[in-house]
Amino acid sequence: MRITLLAGGVGGARFTRGLRDHLARHGTPDGTSAEITVVVNTGDDIWLHGLRVCPDLDTVMYTLGGGIHEGQGWGRPDESRRVTDELHAYGLGWDWFTLGDLDLGTHVARTAMLREGLPLSTVTERLAVRWQPGVHLLPMSDQPCETHVEVDDASSPSGTRLIHFEEWWVRHRAALPARRFVQVGLDDARPAPGVLDAITRADLVLLPPSNPVVSVGTILGVPGIREAMTRTSASVVGVSPILGGAPVRGMADACLTTIGVETSAEAVARHYGSRREPSPTRSETTGVLDGWLVDDADASAVERLEDIGITARALPLLMGDEPGADGRTATGRMVDAAFGVAAARQTT
Amino acid sequence: MRITLLAGGVGGARFTRGLRDHLARHGTPDGTSAEITVVVNTGDDIWLHGLRVCPDLDTVMYTLGGGIHEGQGWGRPDESRRVTDELHAYGLGWDWFTLGDLDLGTHVARTAMLREGLPLSTVTERLAVRWQPGVHLLPMSDQPCETHVEVDDASSPSGTRLIHFEEWWVRHRAALPARRFVQVGLDDARPAPGVLDAITRADLVLLPPSNPVVSVGTILGVPGIREAMTRTSASVVGVSPILGGAPVRGMADACLTTIGVETSAEAVARHYGSRREPSPTRSETTGVLDGWLVDDADASAVERLEDIGITARALPLLMGDEPGADGRTATGRMVDAAFGVAAARQTT
Repeated sequence: MRITLLAGGVGGARFTRGLRDHLARHGTPDGTSAEITVVVNTGDDIWLHGLRVCPDLDTVMYTLGGGIHEGQGWGRPDESRRVTDELHAYGLGWDWFTLGDLDLGTHVARTAMLREGLPLSTVTERLAVRWQPGVHLLPMSDQPCETHVEVDDASSPSGTRLIHFEEWWVRHRAALPARRFVQVGLDDARPAPGVLDAITRADLVLLPPSNPVVSVGTILGVPGIREAMTRTSASVVGVSPILGGAPVRGMADACLTTIGVETSAEAVARHYGSRREPSPTRSETTGVLDGWLVDDADASAVERLEDIGITARALPLLMGDEPGADGRTATGRMVDAAFGVAAARQTT
Repeated sequence: MRITLLAGGVGGARFTRGLRDHLARHGTPDGTSAEITVVVNTGDDIWLHGLRVCPDLDTVMYTLGGGIHEGQGWGRPDESRRVTDELHAYGLGWDWFTLGDLDLGTHVARTAMLREGLPLSTVTERLAVRWQPGVHLLPMSDQPCETHVEVDDASSPSGTRLIHFEEWWVRHRAALPARRFVQVGLDDARPAPGVLDAITRADLVLLPPSNPVVSVGTILGVPGIREAMTRTSASVVGVSPILGGAPVRGMADACLTTIGVETSAEAVARHYGSRREPSPTRSETTGVLDGWLVDDADASAVERLEDIGITARALPLLMGDEPGADGRTATGRMVDAAFGVAAARQTT
């Protein structure tokens, strides 16, 4: 059974790990072995000190490979910052962005391979050999696309300026009002080898509770990917990253506000769009969702989403890795619910 | 008083530090302030993991900046190897060549600036701001030149193969028979900005006890540098790296053997050549030495060198930083001897 996810960092990584472990324990609905592919956002990627840093790819790789700092959700445990301190001593770098030494090993290795001319997808495959994530890791694109944020700047003639997403996210904690997101390079990007196939030939496509704007939204913005999502024969089921009007983690609310979408499970589903409901402004369907899982706190949205052709289910959405009395983790129960939605779609 | 040195790694670095400190304590012969320029060999430079490593520049910079591991003569004290261990975990790198984390900070900083398009000489100047070496540090060239070593290889159609100098030096400890040295890129290199001026406008040019083949020899091989050495009005005085038939440090004997020069203080001086004695094979003078300091053990060479126009002096050449009863260090006494040779030349 082929399952494909479009994922950002922490939320996508943890959901994918829960999925992988759940299927390893309880099997797939059709009893075949699970073949999981994760298409990872690379819009947060950044050059720092001449090194290529891919935050979401690393978070997914470390999380699935047992090398993640569980407490913070990103980076490696037992980190040190000897190299970064040296760089600062040379007057280089941002003092609000520290690369740990272990993490830096990954960036040096990646950059060395990129400089040799290997595409990011091949580099990702080689790095993953060490981590054995148990899934197929794919960057959304081999072309660099970097999300920038337009913020107010009274000193600029235009009154605004663009800063890299990481500066807005990490330095300003998304608190600086954002006028819009600009994905530099996205229009010219192509899906990485295997991405379109992973979507169109999947049995199930999942959107984990990743940021719908700057993670999943960026992936869907790579020319060809949204179209593959609309035409795949697989069911597409998403997990709401918004629970009771707030993101579980991260600052997705600031991103949603910037693009004019309310911070609610229902509004995010409507933003993704229904695969059955044609877009009001375009003749073809551009929605990507068949199903949508919301938290119990958002159960009131279920009926309204069903009205636009999105099969919705309400259940507890807080992820957890500890199995309950039924031997299933919270994430495992979400996975089961997604399978249930997909099965319900196929019988209608 | 302008003093310029052509230097390799450990020997050149320690001699330059001794020179700088001696002049700070005892002043220059003419009472003016000392302006010291070190032209450093970059033939040992190497790309490792996509990072530009410049062993000799770093050794000189760390030594003069108080950041050297005194025991081993190169690298930083209190080192760790967390990043390199990560690189090895990814299956990258040579297991016989470890970059310490602190040292790696320098390589990352340098590479970032090189990738931005800055020439190595500018990068070196920027890195030196942190270390305040008290001298002007110049790479011999902004163009990459990497020394390779031709060694026997029965599996190759030619019976030989080229390996990077660092592989021969560090991995094989110079014990693999070397047929010849090949300086890749040297013929197309140009002296870095300031190098020719530093030689031709100097009051004194010193060759510290660096490797005469792969350090000073490589610098002299940059087109234009040897010619500047022959025409400078400054006296050129060298310090023998060979004491009593053996190198004080390093494996200069293996390098000398490869180019057919005997491992002796006298043979090295003859190899550099006298500025007063025309080359037997060329009409113009290609020798670079006016004076030569040998160890007391090699005092018998003094007269024979004088016969070919090289003013020689015998004195203890083992370097040391502890002042003796006269308040002068061993290195300081070598510097005084070099000044003495230069003065003797000017009165003849």
